[in-house]
Parts: sequence; C-alpha cells; structure tokens
Amino acid sequence: MELHIIKIGGKVVDNEIMLQEILRGFIADNRPKILVHGGGKGATELAEKLGIPTQMVNGRRITDDPTLEIAVMVYAGWFNKKVVAALQAGGCNALGLSGADGNLILAHKRPVGEIDFGWVGDVDTVDAEGIRELLLARFTPVMCAITHDGQGHLLNTNADTIAFKVAQAMSKYYNVTLSYCFEKRGVLLDSEDNATLIPRLDRERFEALKKEGAIHTGMLPKLENAFAAVAAGVETVRICGPDTFSGDGGTLIS
Amino acid sequence: MELHIIKIGGKVVDNEIMLQEILRGFIADNRPKILVHGGGKGATELAEKLGIPTQMVNGRRITDDPTLEIAVMVYAGWFNKKVVAALQAGGCNALGLSGADGNLILAHKRPVGEIDFGWVGDVDTVDAEGIRELLLARFTPVMCAITHDGQGHLLNTNADTIAFKVAQAMSKYYNVTLSYCFEKRGVLLDSEDNATLIPRLDRERFEALKKEGAIHTGMLPKLENAFAAVAAGVETVRICGPDTFSGDGGTLIS
Repeated sequence: MELHIIKIGGKVVDNEIMLQEILRGFIADNRPKILVHGGGKGATELAEKLGIPTQMVNGRRITDDPTLEIAVMVYAGWFNKKVVAALQAGGCNALGLSGADGNLILAHKRPVGEIDFGWVGDVDTVDAEGIRELLLARFTPVMCAITHDGQGHLLNTNADTIAFKVAQAMSKYYNVTLSYCFEKRGVLLDSEDNATLIPRLDRERFEALKKEGAIHTGMLPKLENAFAAVAAGVETVRICGPDTFSGDGGTLIS
Repeated sequence: MELHIIKIGGKVVDNEIMLQEILRGFIADNRPKILVHGGGKGATELAEKLGIPTQMVNGRRITDDPTLEIAVMVYAGWFNKKVVAALQAGGCNALGLSGADGNLILAHKRPVGEIDFGWVGDVDTVDAEGIRELLLARFTPVMCAITHDGQGHLLNTNADTIAFKVAQAMSKYYNVTLSYCFEKRGVLLDSEDNATLIPRLDRERFEALKKEGAIHTGMLPKLENAFAAVAAGVETVRICGPDTFSGDGGTLIS
C-alpha cells in the first residue's frame, strides 16, 4: 500500500499563501499520508520578542532551557494546531503529534563535542507500528520537529531528519513516497530560475554539482537526507514545490 | 468497563512538586484513563512578558488574536508536551491532544453579548468513538483546553467544562469516574483547613452552603460542572487533592 510523507519547511511555513496552497494539495491527496513540518521563523521571532538571543551553528539552533520552551510552544503548539485546524476544516482527519506523543519518536540528546547544542536530539527509533495504528484508525498524523528521550526531556530535532527517519521506518509496511516540499519547484541549477529545474538527480551528479558550488548551501542538508532516505530503501524521494508536491514535478532523487 | 477522567487545574499545574505527585498517582492508576489539564498561570506570565494585557471576566480570559496564540502555545504546546514526556518517562503511553486533533471536540465561538470574549469556545460535541478508539489502541489521552470550530479556528475553552463534556460522552461506553483534582483535599467548609472536608455533597446542601457564602467563589464553577456531570449520568464525580485523586478521599458529588 502507498504512503505519502510530505515534509514542509523553508519559507512555505511562513508564507500564508503558499501554506494554504500546500494544505489544499495535501487534503486532495487521497493516499494515506503524513505531514511533517518545521517551524519557520516563528521560534526566532518569539525569542526576539522575549529578548532571548538566538544562536545558530551549521543551521542548527543552540537550544538552552528557554529556547526549548519556545521551540515546543511554536512547533508543537501554535503551528501544529493551526495546521491541524486548517486540515480539519478541509475534511482531513489530522492528528497533531510530537515524538513524545505515543512515544512515537525516541531520540537522544546530542553529546557535547566542540559545540554544546543543548536540548537538540538525534533520532534513535521511530515506532512504525504505532504510526501505522493511527493511520489504520483513519487519522492523518501531523508531526512537528520535537522528540523526547524517554526520560522526560523534550528535544528539538531537525524536521528533514524526522521526515527521513519516519519514511525509512514506514517502508516496512508501505511503498513510501517522501516529498521534501519548499518554496522552489525542486533542485535548481540557478536557484532564482525555475526553468533550470533538475528533474532527476543521482549521487554522482550531486557530488559533481557540489564540487562546482552549483548547489545552494541551504539545499545541502536537505539533499543529504534525501539521498540517505533512498539508500535506506525509501521507494520514491522527491524535492518539490508547493504546486508540484502531489504530482510528478520536482526533482526525483535516485 | 471503568474509565477514570482526571482534570488537573488550579495551583497544582503551577506547582512542580504537586504536579509530579499527581503524575505519579496517574501513572500508577491501572484503569483506562484520560488526563484533562488547564494551563495555570503560564499564559498570563507569557502574555505579561510579551506586553499583551490579560483581561479576565468571570474567570474567563478575553481571547483576542495574540491571546489565542499564547493560550495555544502554552496549553497545547509547552504544558501538554511537558506532561506527555513526563508520563512517558513513567511508562504511561500518553498522547497529547487538543480538541482539533482528530476532530475530537467541536465547539463554537461564544456569541458576542454584553461581553465579547473573543476566541472563547463553548463545547458542542465530543467524539466518544474517536477517543475510545485511541483508548483501545492503548493510548492515554492528555487533553488540553483548546478546541476548534471545524472551520479552521482554534478556540480557548474552559478545562472544567471539557472534563465534564468528555466524561458525559464517554459514559456511553464506560463506567466513568470524573475527578476534579486541585490543590485542596476536596470541598472544605473552611478553605484553609483540610479537616473541614465535606465528604459528600448533594445539590441541596450545595445550594444552602452557597447561600451562606460558605463556599469559596473559585470553587463555584467547578461545582457547577461537577453537578452537571452527575445530572448528565456520569457515574462518579469527585473533587479531590493531589494525594487523594486515585483513592476514596475528597468530596463525592451526588
């Protein structure tokens, strides 16, 4: 049986028009499906209002106690419930989840090395059976990028990685299509020109483009997760835009 | 089959020691169970930090756009997920929910009368079958006081009322015990003296005590919900404290 996992991130979660377009497409998709979302700029904006400094290293947020509370409030709270309510209004039986809920995603606090990331989690296990049980009960999981360590600590976790790990785990039961959906139409040779879409990208060409510096740095971690998903046996992995995520557009990773 | 619904509110959600005591008792309770929680002072504190004025009328928060966002962040976000992670750490398979999740609690925006409460919701329907499905799948629902109107709007809702409405709906399938758990041992004649506990309270005595002014004003809405639950056919309704909610202590409403 098919399962479509769509990760939305980047600017589409901050842009109300693109977000509504994606949610309409998501509602219309008749496959069993899961939405995974990042939190966009909401956490940074709330931290600013509260006078709590935001520190990013390699695109990851250094997560001290107040920053964790902000991340949970914005990702698992406002954004998750806002999306759930919008999907429900369109007749999609959305159920908002963090990795702590139902113990669905267990992670561990990233060990302190050169950098202490604080309450940042790296995923250990995804409970594919628990998620399947929710799908069979006709719920559509909407997963935010908060996990837990099983010992009472919530952990801020990368949403691209969560999407990959969930896709990998669910591949045990389903033919999974994993779509990384963001504001562009896919992987572009020129990030400002949708006409330069690369329709199909394999590891070899990716490495060559990386060497040339032709791939936008923000795209690199997304592509690393995408290739890891392919290597882990996820049937179809795509990078795509709000208008193409349910169809054949975007960049197929192979 | 038995079902225990425990609503926690008042000062116990702000007091870490009392909260941990309740969660330990909740984990040890072997019945199928549901936790319903208010948000305590968290929303008021966050609003203060953000410079957003808090307006309360008759114990209800006037909920404009920024206040709704705050309520959802604190109740459905931080507090809900903190409790879920703590319960999971104790081996209880908690699943955090708002009324929007799974469309479990539908409400409508309170009509504007003398007072415009803003995004405050009054409960219309509780999906008892959906909640039962989660219980049968061995999840323990942890419900916050946020609902939705089915048209994409989240609504701030009274947690005592949610507990009553959920207990009423679940009485179709279960012998429900509804425990309103707060910082005192139950309904007290002298709110400062636990020795003045009223072990059993019926409507007649309640009305008499109300006339005498012997019942603390903060207790009145809780007792109104408790009597409404009894009238609606909920088998057992109790008002109790952190150390008595799973046993026979507290005040039995009859």
